[in-house]
Amino acid sequence: MAADQVHRASTFAPVNIAVIKYWGKRDTKLNLPTNSSLSVTLSQDDLRTHTTASCSPDFTQDSLTLNGKDQDISGARTQACFRELRQLRKDVEAGDSSLPKLADLKLKVVSENNFPTAAGLASSAAGFAALVRAIANLYQLPATPTDLSKIARQGSGSACRSLFGGYAGWQKGEEEDGSDSLAYEVAPASHWPDMRACILVASADKKDISSTTGMQATVATSALFQERANIVVPKRMKAMEKAIQNRDFEAFATLSMKDSNNFHATCLDTDPPIFYMNDTSRAAVRLCEAINDAAGKIVCGYTFDAGPNAVVYYLAEDEERVAGTFKAILGDKTGWEGKKGQAVKSDVQVPEGNEVVVGLLQKGISRVILTSVGDGPRKTEEHLC
Amino acid sequence: MAADQVHRASTFAPVNIAVIKYWGKRDTKLNLPTNSSLSVTLSQDDLRTHTTASCSPDFTQDSLTLNGKDQDISGARTQACFRELRQLRKDVEAGDSSLPKLADLKLKVVSENNFPTAAGLASSAAGFAALVRAIANLYQLPATPTDLSKIARQGSGSACRSLFGGYAGWQKGEEEDGSDSLAYEVAPASHWPDMRACILVASADKKDISSTTGMQATVATSALFQERANIVVPKRMKAMEKAIQNRDFEAFATLSMKDSNNFHATCLDTDPPIFYMNDTSRAAVRLCEAINDAAGKIVCGYTFDAGPNAVVYYLAEDEERVAGTFKAILGDKTGWEGKKGQAVKSDVQVPEGNEVVVGLLQKGISRVILTSVGDGPRKTEEHLC
Repeated sequence: MAADQVHRASTFAPVNIAVIKYWGKRDTKLNLPTNSSLSVTLSQDDLRTHTTASCSPDFTQDSLTLNGKDQDISGARTQACFRELRQLRKDVEAGDSSLPKLADLKLKVVSENNFPTAAGLASSAAGFAALVRAIANLYQLPATPTDLSKIARQGSGSACRSLFGGYAGWQKGEEEDGSDSLAYEVAPASHWPDMRACILVASADKKDISSTTGMQATVATSALFQERANIVVPKRMKAMEKAIQNRDFEAFATLSMKDSNNFHATCLDTDPPIFYMNDTSRAAVRLCEAINDAAGKIVCGYTFDAGPNAVVYYLAEDEERVAGTFKAILGDKTGWEGKKGQAVKSDVQVPEGNEVVVGLLQKGISRVILTSVGDGPRKTEEHLC
Repeated sequence: MAADQVHRASTFAPVNIAVIKYWGKRDTKLNLPTNSSLSVTLSQDDLRTHTTASCSPDFTQDSLTLNGKDQDISGARTQACFRELRQLRKDVEAGDSSLPKLADLKLKVVSENNFPTAAGLASSAAGFAALVRAIANLYQLPATPTDLSKIARQGSGSACRSLFGGYAGWQKGEEEDGSDSLAYEVAPASHWPDMRACILVASADKKDISSTTGMQATVATSALFQERANIVVPKRMKAMEKAIQNRDFEAFATLSMKDSNNFHATCLDTDPPIFYMNDTSRAAVRLCEAINDAAGKIVCGYTFDAGPNAVVYYLAEDEERVAGTFKAILGDKTGWEGKKGQAVKSDVQVPEGNEVVVGLLQKGISRVILTSVGDGPRKTEEHLC
């Protein structure tokens, strides 16, 4: 192989937002969770990581660049992904001596997010899914998304779900080595394509505590956490899968809201308590309730990750009364100017009696992102290096 | 008995603030709780209800006045208190025919609080304790505070604990008729007189939901509530009684904070979620943590009732670093002008790195109340009518 030969492969990978939350590890080294979780994969038109993986005899060390900045790759998580993918490539090379020996070459990975880092969206999920998928493409591995999910999981737990589009589950697994802690497709995006999401990005405040640290504090100190992990979530996983199979939005949204609150309840029950939701988040909760009350049925459901941002799910048919209500209140914020945002009507009546809530949202929300359920990672010939 | 003869008796009764919280009824009619609870009785020098109960053949109907305003007494709770106290008086009269027939006369009850209603402090506990104690005095009942606690409990659950000074427990009881759901003295104020409390009164915002409605919503919908009521609280009741017996402030404060957070966690886990703590409350939590960190030990512990106000417990010896820190931040608010407040030093160094917290407290706290553990109801000859 010529010394100047560079092998490369690129992918886009999506963000996912859990509706049954991952919180707590039973094994911190292997990133094995205390409970299963389930998420909606969001459209890559709006939120995605673009990653190119390359290798060459010219490269003298492994490297990773994100949004133009060199990243530290010495951490155990990134190393685990590199190591496992190289091993799979070695297995392939061992079976076919005509293949180039890529596993022995240094890797150069370059990543870019198409969404603002300041938005506080969990970008590590898309990031590690893209990294794993890009290297797997580079190595031409015969691995399935589920195979790769076990590797991506070790980079960032929720990354495993971003290897699938649509509606993805992550089964916690029982094995000590993590071999059955993997992601699976609950339903493709095409099964229920009308799912929409409006993300209300709260003005950047200092984050309470990182999710990695926070979840282990909850496991160690919350008197309610075991009940959530062992009893509450297993029931809700089944109910949520059923809601998705049946395209039952009311069940989907109700379970999403309950599980978000249940997760944040265990955060509050942590010693010292962890607060991710703030007064702005609570205003978003109240407005969703008011929208549902006004509709006389559940037309939207909120969920909050480890931060104050609200993700509000709704169906395309309810865009006007859900996204439209938010636009009537937050029309002057960034995010409505795109094609999706411009299409949303904003002459919508805000449910009465919500003056305090409206004031809190106008003060606390800095941008909105309108998106929808989307596909899994997409291969691309657009290379970043 | 002359037609113009008025019988009267008066009492003061204290406010109590629970450190193991009452939340949830197993019987809404009898006010029987789902779990036991424990509180500190606060000094009547600072917070008290003053009540005069009178009866006379001249009175044509039962009446209750609070702070000069006629109250509706047709509710089942007030009626239960009147009925049960009259029955006890009838039993006494039946045993001694020389006694005046007071049970047949209409009652006039006049009450005044010495603290601002706007403070959002649970005044119903002191109010019903005073009402029951005053009528019991009027009727010269031989009933013990524990006997009376079963009556006051039917007026307002936590009122039963205000019949005791110092440290009072309310055992949930097992009987269906509520006969063993009563308050008891854990320790008198004299056992641990150094306990102090600094109440941070948050600027009046609309309260989320009444505690009566809220607690039953939690019982009905929280997936975590049974764990709290059946497992978490029974353990903590024992630990808290031990902490008080041993005058172990670190255990007392740690349990107070954990139980407050655990209670609010079940509120958040309610459907729809109940939020009593706001960004100001959370700032108070963070400042308590910072004070404890700076001290290198637990010198203060917070607790929050069904509202955003923080009650911060500390020992007299730590007044400077606890109340002094709050005074350094909130020195311009109402409440420091009294004898207790003036004595608190305010040239105290606020722990560094708390600028956001300090700003939230200055914006969100409207008044402070400095107080301490105090005695139970006191008879008085100062009559309000």
